[in-house]
Amino acid sequence: MVPRVLSVDVPGHIGQRITIAGWLHRRRELKSVTFLVIRDRTGLAQVVLPAGSAAPPEETVVQVNGLVVANDQAPAGAELTDAELTPLSGPACPPPFDLYRPRLTATLPTILDHAPTSLRHPLLRAGLEVAAASAAGFRSAMSGLGFTEIFTPKIVESATEGGANVFRLDYFDRPAYLAQSPQFYKQAMVGVFERVFEVGPVFRAEPHDTGRHLAEYTSLDAELGFIADHLDVMPFCRDAVAGMVGMVRERADFGIRTLRATLPEVPAEIPHVHFAEAMALISAATGEDLTAEDDLAPAHERWLCEWAGREHGSDLLFVTGYPLAAKPFYTYPDPERPRYSYGFDLLFRGTEIVTGGQRLHRYEDYLAALAARGMDPAPFEGYLQVFRHGMPPHGGFAIGLERWTALLTGAANVRQVTLFPRDLHRLSP
Amino acid sequence: MVPRVLSVDVPGHIGQRITIAGWLHRRRELKSVTFLVIRDRTGLAQVVLPAGSAAPPEETVVQVNGLVVANDQAPAGAELTDAELTPLSGPACPPPFDLYRPRLTATLPTILDHAPTSLRHPLLRAGLEVAAASAAGFRSAMSGLGFTEIFTPKIVESATEGGANVFRLDYFDRPAYLAQSPQFYKQAMVGVFERVFEVGPVFRAEPHDTGRHLAEYTSLDAELGFIADHLDVMPFCRDAVAGMVGMVRERADFGIRTLRATLPEVPAEIPHVHFAEAMALISAATGEDLTAEDDLAPAHERWLCEWAGREHGSDLLFVTGYPLAAKPFYTYPDPERPRYSYGFDLLFRGTEIVTGGQRLHRYEDYLAALAARGMDPAPFEGYLQVFRHGMPPHGGFAIGLERWTALLTGAANVRQVTLFPRDLHRLSP
Repeated sequence: MVPRVLSVDVPGHIGQRITIAGWLHRRRELKSVTFLVIRDRTGLAQVVLPAGSAAPPEETVVQVNGLVVANDQAPAGAELTDAELTPLSGPACPPPFDLYRPRLTATLPTILDHAPTSLRHPLLRAGLEVAAASAAGFRSAMSGLGFTEIFTPKIVESATEGGANVFRLDYFDRPAYLAQSPQFYKQAMVGVFERVFEVGPVFRAEPHDTGRHLAEYTSLDAELGFIADHLDVMPFCRDAVAGMVGMVRERADFGIRTLRATLPEVPAEIPHVHFAEAMALISAATGEDLTAEDDLAPAHERWLCEWAGREHGSDLLFVTGYPLAAKPFYTYPDPERPRYSYGFDLLFRGTEIVTGGQRLHRYEDYLAALAARGMDPAPFEGYLQVFRHGMPPHGGFAIGLERWTALLTGAANVRQVTLFPRDLHRLSP
Repeated sequence: MVPRVLSVDVPGHIGQRITIAGWLHRRRELKSVTFLVIRDRTGLAQVVLPAGSAAPPEETVVQVNGLVVANDQAPAGAELTDAELTPLSGPACPPPFDLYRPRLTATLPTILDHAPTSLRHPLLRAGLEVAAASAAGFRSAMSGLGFTEIFTPKIVESATEGGANVFRLDYFDRPAYLAQSPQFYKQAMVGVFERVFEVGPVFRAEPHDTGRHLAEYTSLDAELGFIADHLDVMPFCRDAVAGMVGMVRERADFGIRTLRATLPEVPAEIPHVHFAEAMALISAATGEDLTAEDDLAPAHERWLCEWAGREHGSDLLFVTGYPLAAKPFYTYPDPERPRYSYGFDLLFRGTEIVTGGQRLHRYEDYLAALAARGMDPAPFEGYLQVFRHGMPPHGGFAIGLERWTALLTGAANVRQVTLFPRDLHRLSP
């Protein structure tokens, strides 16, 4: 390895000559002295050169050998003096924005066009750290609850949920599709492991050009068997979210502070309200007639989150029993009130972040559900076969990693916390 | 939840009435008594019914309430008597093979056609457990070494490595491709985090119809900066493999025993041999003239593994310095011997399981390398831009999860340890 001291460890070497290495984050040429700030994966270190010293452009990768001296004015109270600078790669061509400024001044499209470089900015890097910690927290929570990790195929024979928003592929001269979700596979694997989870990409040919839609995102999926109904799934979903928040606190504390974000308290039991009751509450408060509504509008989601904060002191709220018409065909109906389902959403800070529920588990129920929606069962035959061979009552949920990270960090656009986003217009870098 | 005692816990309830739930694994109707074996995620439990009792077909999901009594003949020394059986789903249609037999008697294509059901067999389930534990071990090792997890896009604008074996996609009426590897993205992210890893799907339109090629597999990728050369990458690769073996030992011990597999000892330093020296050794032993060879044939890989076992007592061997001609254009050349590269492979039990090396890190070196191979730099411009903005010397490696799992468990065909494999002929289930 290149022998080096990481910037975080520099203050421990006062009085010694050491070598640091990293990116030339900033040059400040004053009359009497030139300051260099070197950035590495642990932070920043200051180097002092005599005035008029030659230094390569910002973002050049350099190695600096120097004497560590205490200086109250320097980051962490120490800096390198009497320094020799060696470039580790050629001089950098400066990016189209200054990475050392508190905020990137470029527009979002410019930032995304230069993502490999712009992601070096602490504010963008921080979002990725929060996403990584969230995924690790999800996996850790699920493993701790006896869930087995699965890796399901992303190239599939038929569109997963029967929807139109699928990417079509040429598969050895046959048509194929990119999986919109691991839904059917995770259900099938309940038959093998009872409890399974997956962290992987999902693909949606979304024609929506909004701040919350992506054509490819990371889905955190879980599914479990031997439940009585959807209410048995919700505590697992709560534990997943609590695990994610806990791991962010543990591993991405710096990122959260950089972004000035606040982590939610996850209650031991997240409050829940039935869809019908939620609509009645909103109607009573706003005078709107919502009796014919099958789904929550964004304004209703915001209203309910405010209500949950007031009534229950919770940033999180489960809405249960969504009308069957708003849910996919594999959703389990409420046997007492057939208009409603055993599906649920989890709302957080005004937006839905998790969707889940109990699924159908009997073969004949699938045939009936498809027929009721006028859908052809033929493309689903491969998927449905497992329900002929014994499947327990089961359910699960899915969390979109990028949307979760955006809400947690207060990012206005999900693209700000996505590594190389894909959307209607963007396919690179 | 369905109130239940897991099969592993049954012996702790002797003298009590309990409820268990799971799949009817086996019915054995004897003259005087009927035995049922119930399978759940923790194992098997035996139920005794009076002779002539009605029981649904195998694989039906059932709940059984009964009195636990000690019986030396029963699995784990206890069984349920005086039992009441309630189906939790309709009677199962039996799969085309008996899941209770020690081995599935069907052919591999039949097994794969019915994967959602056949994976319930302990021998197939065990392979998936080993894969899950291996992935967890990789992530744990990498996190412990300061690597940050990344989620890179799988839909890309141009074929990752410039090769022909890519799947083409219709992306909102534009052509796009499925990523053959996260290679370029993980390199770019060294500029952000210095050390990164990813566990995700990769896609190869492989025309090869063999027991070790898949069209989609899970790649364990790592990349790090501030190295002197490829020899600095190899200890990280060693730690990744050691972490994988360690986690398999910890979490998939039952799977390993079921498959009668042996875990390797991973030496603190895995022995390594230069490609030229390896060829000289083989030539000396076999008399073959290998001076013009740019790659190892499978027989050579096997010979070298046997040699490593004899000479170094190791199941693992690094071969370093592969000829540049056999490596992708981003491979760093050996400055002293330009025919050779700073690439390496890790061989295990006769087969290459890891490929890695140092990469080029200067923009002009990329242009020269592409020109030397007669490749057009235009499709790579988006990828190459990051090398203009300061990249340290860096390298990394990739491990194919399914091939690793097959070698570790002694599976003859990688499809035996892959969840729903995809190949030239297979796109479902």
